[in-house]
Amino acid sequence: MTRPNPISGFPEWAPAQRMIEQRVIDRLRETFELHGFAPLETRAVEPMDQLLRKGETSKEVYVLRRLQADAEDPSDSGLGLHFDLTVPFARYVLEHAGKLQFPFRRYQIQKCWRGERPQEGRYREFLQADIDIVDRDALCPHYEVELPLVIADAFAGLPIPPIRMHVNNRKLSQGFYQGLGLAGPMAAIRVVDKLDKIGPAAVADQLRDALGASEEQAKACLALAEIRASDASFADAVRALGVSDPLLDEGLAELVAVVEAAAEHAPGLVVADLKIARGLDYYTGTVYETVLVGHESIGSVCSGGRYDNLASAGDVRYPGVGLSIGVSRLLGRLFGRDLLTVSRPSPTCVVVALPDEGDRVRCMRVAAALRGRGIPAEVAPAAAKYGKQIRFADRRGIPYVWFPGPEGEPDAVKDIRSGEQVEADAATWQPPAEDRRPRIAGA
Amino acid sequence: MTRPNPISGFPEWAPAQRMIEQRVIDRLRETFELHGFAPLETRAVEPMDQLLRKGETSKEVYVLRRLQADAEDPSDSGLGLHFDLTVPFARYVLEHAGKLQFPFRRYQIQKCWRGERPQEGRYREFLQADIDIVDRDALCPHYEVELPLVIADAFAGLPIPPIRMHVNNRKLSQGFYQGLGLAGPMAAIRVVDKLDKIGPAAVADQLRDALGASEEQAKACLALAEIRASDASFADAVRALGVSDPLLDEGLAELVAVVEAAAEHAPGLVVADLKIARGLDYYTGTVYETVLVGHESIGSVCSGGRYDNLASAGDVRYPGVGLSIGVSRLLGRLFGRDLLTVSRPSPTCVVVALPDEGDRVRCMRVAAALRGRGIPAEVAPAAAKYGKQIRFADRRGIPYVWFPGPEGEPDAVKDIRSGEQVEADAATWQPPAEDRRPRIAGA
Repeated sequence: MTRPNPISGFPEWAPAQRMIEQRVIDRLRETFELHGFAPLETRAVEPMDQLLRKGETSKEVYVLRRLQADAEDPSDSGLGLHFDLTVPFARYVLEHAGKLQFPFRRYQIQKCWRGERPQEGRYREFLQADIDIVDRDALCPHYEVELPLVIADAFAGLPIPPIRMHVNNRKLSQGFYQGLGLAGPMAAIRVVDKLDKIGPAAVADQLRDALGASEEQAKACLALAEIRASDASFADAVRALGVSDPLLDEGLAELVAVVEAAAEHAPGLVVADLKIARGLDYYTGTVYETVLVGHESIGSVCSGGRYDNLASAGDVRYPGVGLSIGVSRLLGRLFGRDLLTVSRPSPTCVVVALPDEGDRVRCMRVAAALRGRGIPAEVAPAAAKYGKQIRFADRRGIPYVWFPGPEGEPDAVKDIRSGEQVEADAATWQPPAEDRRPRIAGA
Repeated sequence: MTRPNPISGFPEWAPAQRMIEQRVIDRLRETFELHGFAPLETRAVEPMDQLLRKGETSKEVYVLRRLQADAEDPSDSGLGLHFDLTVPFARYVLEHAGKLQFPFRRYQIQKCWRGERPQEGRYREFLQADIDIVDRDALCPHYEVELPLVIADAFAGLPIPPIRMHVNNRKLSQGFYQGLGLAGPMAAIRVVDKLDKIGPAAVADQLRDALGASEEQAKACLALAEIRASDASFADAVRALGVSDPLLDEGLAELVAVVEAAAEHAPGLVVADLKIARGLDYYTGTVYETVLVGHESIGSVCSGGRYDNLASAGDVRYPGVGLSIGVSRLLGRLFGRDLLTVSRPSPTCVVVALPDEGDRVRCMRVAAALRGRGIPAEVAPAAAKYGKQIRFADRRGIPYVWFPGPEGEPDAVKDIRSGEQVEADAATWQPPAEDRRPRIAGA
C-alpha cells in the first residue's frame, strides 16, 4: 500500500489538536449544562424529503446508497447526511413531542456534512455545537435575549480572541419594508443580505429592478442597513427614518431587549447591526451572526435566530430559537495561525522506566498507583538504557520519568525538563497541578 | 408536516439516555487518557478502495454521492462511510507516520455505519470506542497483556454488569493445526470460528470435507476448542493433546502471559478460551472477545486482537494491537432492560422562580451567581403562579426552586421533593453534592 493522501474538505486534526478540540467541546458542554440544556444526539441521516425542505441547500447534500443495495429491504434508501443540526432537531421534536417537556432546551454537538467546494473555513465535514429552546404553540421572546448570553458564557472560558455578536430582528426589517410600502418584504431581506458581497449600489439596483422600489425606498433600505450601535440608540436612528409600522415597533422592542440585556450581562458582546439578514427563509424574529474579533474574514462563527414555523404537525406549532457554533471553522482558523496550543501531545504525565523486562509487573503496579490518584502514567516500552527511556518521554513532551528503586530502596522521579530528581513514593507523590494534564493556551 | 417515523437500525437516545451515554464516554476517555492514549478522530469517510481491502465487509458499506455531483470536481467521489475505526486508523498511521512517535497509542470514540439488516444489538449507525497501540517494524508482545487491563479499568468505574474477556492466540491455533499436519491452518481457524453457530458435528464435517482433515485431526481440533481456563492450566491441557510446533509454543507463552497478568491486575476478568477465533484474516496474535455477564446473547461488547500486517508502506510495517468497545450495542441492551438510569432528564439543579416578568433581570443574576459556583440553574419561563412554576421543575425532576425575596428581604430555596424551604443567598448556598448533577445508577 502506498502512502494515502488527505481528502480535500475533510479535515483531520493531529492528536494534539484533537486534545484542544475536546477541551473546547468540554467547555461548551459544561456551559450549556449549567444553563439547563439537555444533551441530544440525532442520527447522522435524515430522509431526503426532510433535507430538501429548505430548497436552498439541496445542492450540498450527500446521498447514501448501500453498496449491495437490497430490493427486499428498502428501509435505508432515500437517506442523506444532515447538513446542519436544526433540521434534524425540528424533526426530532415532532417525532417525540409527546415525550418532551416544553419549553424544551437541548444542546447538540455533532458532525455535519455538505458537499460544498472547500475553501478556508468551509469544510465538507465539520463540527457544529448548537443550542435551541423550543416551546409548544408560542415561545416567549425573552429566550431571544437569553441565548446570546449562554454563548458569551461558553466563549468566556476559552483562550481565544473575543467574539462580537451582530444582531438584528426580522420583524424590524420586514416591518420597515412594509411601512415603506415595498411589495415583497422577504425578497427585500434577501437582497439586503447580499450587501457585504455586492455593495450598496448593486443592492439599490436590485431593489429597484427586481422589487420595483423607488429611488427613495431603496435609499431608505440602505439607510436602515447602515444603522449599527452597541446600545438602544439604534432605535432612535430607525425612527428618524420616518417609517412606521406595528411589526416594526414589535421588532424594535425585541431588539432593544436583546441589546440591553446583553449590555448588562456581557458588556461589549452584542451590537445591533441592521444589515444582518441571514439568507434562510425560516427566521421570524431575532437573527444572529458572530465574528471572531480580528478574524472577520472567516465569516460568522456562531449564527442562528428565531424560527416560528420550522416544526409543525397539524395545528400544533413548535416555535424555537437557536444558535449554532461552527467549531471546525473556528478551530481551523486558530490552528492555522497557531493561536491555540497544548503543552504536550500525549496525556501521559509520568513514564515509569523499566530497569529490566522482568520488572514489568512491578512497574505496572507503580503506574497503576499513580493512575489511581489521577496521574496519567505509562510503563516504558522496553528495558533499554535509561537515556533511551528518557528520550522516549522527551520526544512526547512527557515531563516526568519514574525510576523504580532496587529491591528495598526508594523509587525516584525526575523532572526531565529541569533534570531535578527526588525520592518518591507512588502512593503519595504529586506532580504540580499544571503538569498533571496537558494545558491549553491561547497566543 | 406529519409526525416522522424512526428509521430502523439508526437508534436515537432520549436526552436522559444521552446523558448516560456521555458519562460512559467520559469514563472511557478518562481511563484511556490515564493510560496515556492520545485522542484521535478521523473523518467519517474513506476511499472505497480502502474500505474494500477486507473483502468480507464490502456488502455493508454505505457509499456517498453528492446530490448535485460535479464532474469538474471529482474530489469527493468514490467515498464511503467507515464501518469500523481500525481501517481508518491504519490509514491514518500510514498517512502521518512521519509526524507520529512510535509506539503510538491512541483512542478513538466515533460513530460507524454498516448497512446490515438490523436486529437487537446490531445497528446501522453505532458508537465504537477503540484503543490501539502501533509500533514501527515490531511490536512488543507485552502490549497484548496491557490492553485488556485498560478495558478492565474503564469498565470497573461503570455501574453495569461485570464483563468477562475470552482470549485466544492465533499463533497457538495456527501452530496447533500446523503441528497436527493440517494443510490450511487459516481455513481451519475460520471453520472453528463457527463452532457456536453450527455445533461440533458440523465443524468436524467441514474440517473433513473442506480441508481433508482425518477423523483424528478433526477430533483434536475440537478438543483444542473445548479448552477453557481462567489460569495458565490451559497450557497443560493443550500439551496433553500431544501436538508440538514452535509457533504453538510461542502462542502458548504469549497467552499464558496475558492470562497471568490479568489474574494479577484484574482477577476474574480474563479466561483463556481456545475456541475464540475472530473471523477477520488480519489478526496474527492475541484475539479478544468480551461478554457482559448475564447478557451473553448480545454477543461480544469488546473485541479485537493483534494485527501485524494491516498497515504497511513499502518495506515498513506498522504492527498493532487494538480493542474496540461496542458502546451502542452495550447501551442498547442496558437501556432496553432499564439497567442503567439517571436521576433526572434535565441538567438543571435549581429553577429560579419569577415573581413578575419585571423581575427577570434580577432572577437572571441569581441564576448566574449559582452557575458561577457550578450549580446548573435556569429562570422559570414565565411569571405564572408559584404552583405552576413548581410543577415546571417537578415535571423535569429538577429538585430545587429558588424564590427571590421581596426588595430587602432574603431569598428562599425549596427542596420540592421534601417540601423543606430555607432562607438562602445565591452567593453561598450549596445543594447536597448528590443533587448538583444528574446521577447515573445501575439496576
